[in-house]
Amino acid sequence: MSTPVSAQAVKDLREKTGAGLLDCQKALAEAGGNVEQAITILRKKGAATADKKSGRSTKEGLVSSYIHIGGKVGVLLEVNCETDFVARNDDFKTFCNDLCLQIAAASPLYVTRDEVPEAAIAAEREIAVAQVQGKPPAAIQKIVEGKLEKYYSTVCLVDQPFVKQPDKSIKEILTEKIAKIGENITIRRFTRYQLGA
Amino acid sequence: MSTPVSAQAVKDLREKTGAGLLDCQKALAEAGGNVEQAITILRKKGAATADKKSGRSTKEGLVSSYIHIGGKVGVLLEVNCETDFVARNDDFKTFCNDLCLQIAAASPLYVTRDEVPEAAIAAEREIAVAQVQGKPPAAIQKIVEGKLEKYYSTVCLVDQPFVKQPDKSIKEILTEKIAKIGENITIRRFTRYQLGA
Repeated sequence: MSTPVSAQAVKDLREKTGAGLLDCQKALAEAGGNVEQAITILRKKGAATADKKSGRSTKEGLVSSYIHIGGKVGVLLEVNCETDFVARNDDFKTFCNDLCLQIAAASPLYVTRDEVPEAAIAAEREIAVAQVQGKPPAAIQKIVEGKLEKYYSTVCLVDQPFVKQPDKSIKEILTEKIAKIGENITIRRFTRYQLGA
Repeated sequence: MSTPVSAQAVKDLREKTGAGLLDCQKALAEAGGNVEQAITILRKKGAATADKKSGRSTKEGLVSSYIHIGGKVGVLLEVNCETDFVARNDDFKTFCNDLCLQIAAASPLYVTRDEVPEAAIAAEREIAVAQVQGKPPAAIQKIVEGKLEKYYSTVCLVDQPFVKQPDKSIKEILTEKIAKIGENITIRRFTRYQLGA
């Protein structure tokens, strides 16, 4: 190999993509050890299996719940996978429990940004535009998009930083789980009750 | 007293109304031992406290949940009461757990009939009318009302027979709890997830 590749980088890459050991080693070598570039290489080759799996249909899964101490906040969640075998897997159950905790703690309103109503997005955009008057149009555009991203990462579960590991988004954790478990996984729906709210 | 009153009848009457021991004894004696009539007497006197309590505001309570074995069905529920003291009471918790089981088992769609959409009621009425052609109008009216009651007792949580004790409706169990616990209790909302449904 042209570049020495660290075992840790290979491990990271496998977690992120679900690709095979050899594919990861080769891609990292080709990318000079750069993980992001290696991901692109794997994607082009179609070896990033998490991406491939995300198209597969999910009809099994688990309904799980979490009640915060004191019974003032509760969460109900449905996560789908491809087989009942995986639904009974501890990794899958842990992921569902982590999502319940996330929803209880970070109060998302939607699973993905596709669910955010057009009117809510328009309102956010309007607020953002009003906040950045007097800058060049190109800068305004960029700042507004940044503010919208910030909004999504507040209200959309998959865009939120994972409360247990804030350097990763829920979407990244999900991709890692798909790679590790080897089945497509989808977060179907959730409900969060806060007493009296 | 004019009529001998059984201890069991007094107990039943107290559970149903929450009225005091002496009031119940007097009302039963006055009603010749007839519990239904005694309830009416107590109501007229304003001694049926469950009725009085049902007007009081409920801001405390519990969010509780139930996941059926296998994780294919789950329920999230909010029940309100007047004080946090009652929310932490075992009787109240048991009632919440029973309601969760009820919702999991009997799949209601609404808490009360007030929540049933007008269109759904109109559709039910239409079906019922179509089923009873060729009878006298007065009979049709009565049969249709009966079928609507049946519909409510299927889709409305409070009108459903309690799965653990089918001779009582959830509404009756609720009234008993209000009488026993001594605070107004309201079933605020619930969500039921069935995997893939």
